[in-house]
Amino acid sequence: MPIFSKNYLTKIALNILETAGVPKNEARTITDFIIKSNLAGHDSQGIIRLTDYLNLFKKREGKLGIKIKIVRETPSTAVIDGKWGFGQIVTSQAMRIAVQKAKKSSVGVVSVRHCNHIGRLSNYAIIATKQHMIGIVIVNGTRVNVAPYGGCDPRLSTNPICIAIPTKKKPLVLDMSSSVVCEGKVRVKRNAKAKVPIGWLIDRNAKPITNPLHFYGPPRQSILPLGGIAAYKGFGLGFMFDILAGGLSGAGCSNRDNKCIGNAIFMEAIKIRSFMPLRKFYLEVEKFIEFVKSSKTAPGFKEILVPGEIENRTIKERNKKGIFIDNGTWSEIKNRAKELGINT
Amino acid sequence: MPIFSKNYLTKIALNILETAGVPKNEARTITDFIIKSNLAGHDSQGIIRLTDYLNLFKKREGKLGIKIKIVRETPSTAVIDGKWGFGQIVTSQAMRIAVQKAKKSSVGVVSVRHCNHIGRLSNYAIIATKQHMIGIVIVNGTRVNVAPYGGCDPRLSTNPICIAIPTKKKPLVLDMSSSVVCEGKVRVKRNAKAKVPIGWLIDRNAKPITNPLHFYGPPRQSILPLGGIAAYKGFGLGFMFDILAGGLSGAGCSNRDNKCIGNAIFMEAIKIRSFMPLRKFYLEVEKFIEFVKSSKTAPGFKEILVPGEIENRTIKERNKKGIFIDNGTWSEIKNRAKELGINT
Repeated sequence: MPIFSKNYLTKIALNILETAGVPKNEARTITDFIIKSNLAGHDSQGIIRLTDYLNLFKKREGKLGIKIKIVRETPSTAVIDGKWGFGQIVTSQAMRIAVQKAKKSSVGVVSVRHCNHIGRLSNYAIIATKQHMIGIVIVNGTRVNVAPYGGCDPRLSTNPICIAIPTKKKPLVLDMSSSVVCEGKVRVKRNAKAKVPIGWLIDRNAKPITNPLHFYGPPRQSILPLGGIAAYKGFGLGFMFDILAGGLSGAGCSNRDNKCIGNAIFMEAIKIRSFMPLRKFYLEVEKFIEFVKSSKTAPGFKEILVPGEIENRTIKERNKKGIFIDNGTWSEIKNRAKELGINT
Repeated sequence: MPIFSKNYLTKIALNILETAGVPKNEARTITDFIIKSNLAGHDSQGIIRLTDYLNLFKKREGKLGIKIKIVRETPSTAVIDGKWGFGQIVTSQAMRIAVQKAKKSSVGVVSVRHCNHIGRLSNYAIIATKQHMIGIVIVNGTRVNVAPYGGCDPRLSTNPICIAIPTKKKPLVLDMSSSVVCEGKVRVKRNAKAKVPIGWLIDRNAKPITNPLHFYGPPRQSILPLGGIAAYKGFGLGFMFDILAGGLSGAGCSNRDNKCIGNAIFMEAIKIRSFMPLRKFYLEVEKFIEFVKSSKTAPGFKEILVPGEIENRTIKERNKKGIFIDNGTWSEIKNRAKELGINT
């Protein structure tokens, strides 16, 4: 049960990426984003992705040192071709463009195609909050993993949404897939040789799956849409998000025609000051948080947490106690390091 | 078990509103929107609301003949004071402003405060689709109905979202609350003297409620957030929607300080042509719908339906067979009509 410090994992990831040929500045951005995900407790978007990224680079599907191209633009919108650069590199640039546009035009909507896996959406949405803006990121993907409501073949990606809203203290951050669980969490269970709860996965006959290996197939089985008895709502969200991300960007919905494993992205920055004086907005949000937290808790709960709060606590804790990496993931990373002649 | 034609219900509603003193053009808009909701199968936003609206007007909380006021504006944004006009009147005007802004600026974001109950969001979001735009409407409310994740006191309204996307045929329309069910559906069950399924409602000790009368209290109990085993996601959506609607508009989050029963609104129109050529976009959406529908169905399902499809079928059916109104609702309406000297 290996536990590592943030600094150690950062060093290893950087070393692996740079030795594999990723330019220093790109390796730094990628490493920063994946280690931040581990720190926040979202191991599914953390260092577990490193071997995937190396494969992308090896197969020349993840391009290095690219310059993104704006293919269509207005003062408040842009469509960006990421030219299959690494997701972290392309998306952070694209979000900065959305923020620039919102600075001048109050709202910036940017659509991105031809972009590799971008990892945890929060990393990008919070770029907007630093400028007193609301950041929204919606994504679809090339790998179909999620069954439609009433169906049992995978037809959608886990199509997540992130909404980040600044406050006087830390931003509120909601970062969630439109499926009951994101694929990465199934992967974490697989690597830890653990079972998954009933209600996450079904097979091609709509029977529940609890063994994550069975999910990965081949053939790939399905994650259920979010919602339980109202799963048509989670399916509806995932379906509409697919069009926002894939339809507006030109990447394609459900990314069917793309050969690379990537994401298409819809991102938006909204300047709060164009709607409300900042002081008034922040005060109202503060009162709202207080009001929601004042609810009596249900049995088994100690307090009401607002979006992003649990992650902020995990960051504090993991900065102090370190990051636990499951054996499966760690042995994958060690093997890759060894291949590159790096000691772990 | 009374069943009525669309025309009959329209005549009755118009007659009641006009006799009660609502100006002709406003009565027409309100009636049009509520009967459309019944036709689409969403009785919870249909004629069941009529007595509420009459009460609003009687208590002078629903103002007639108001002119909405733009209190803050940029080429792509506006904040609107609805001056407590009827929701249908204020919101349809506000959506048209968002569409006008998107025509010139590619994106229009409009925020509305001081607005009475607006009913079914689809009615407004589809205004954008007629101009080849995507329409988004997000709402919070004054009546807290929904418990936070891990809590058992009501802290949020059912904070719904509607996303409407045009296609070559009928628009795709997702219209859903961020709770497992909207409050109106509980009201329909109450009026029909029926029980609600476990998983909809809890009491102040987090115990399940199946009797809708118990939910209405006083004190008011809680609807659960959307998500089942992942209800923190539904709560997260509802929480963030509250800030988008109430924080940006100045109405307030969870609308705590408002005395009227109203909604605050975030609405957005996105011009598709600023991102993709329309032909390409519509073709992609069509292929996507086909792909999703090609999934094998789960036991108990005959086909995969995309957002808005079931409503379109219900409209066809109810246009032919009529609209069923439960006894409780119908006797409420009959009483009101009688008070106004109208024969039903």
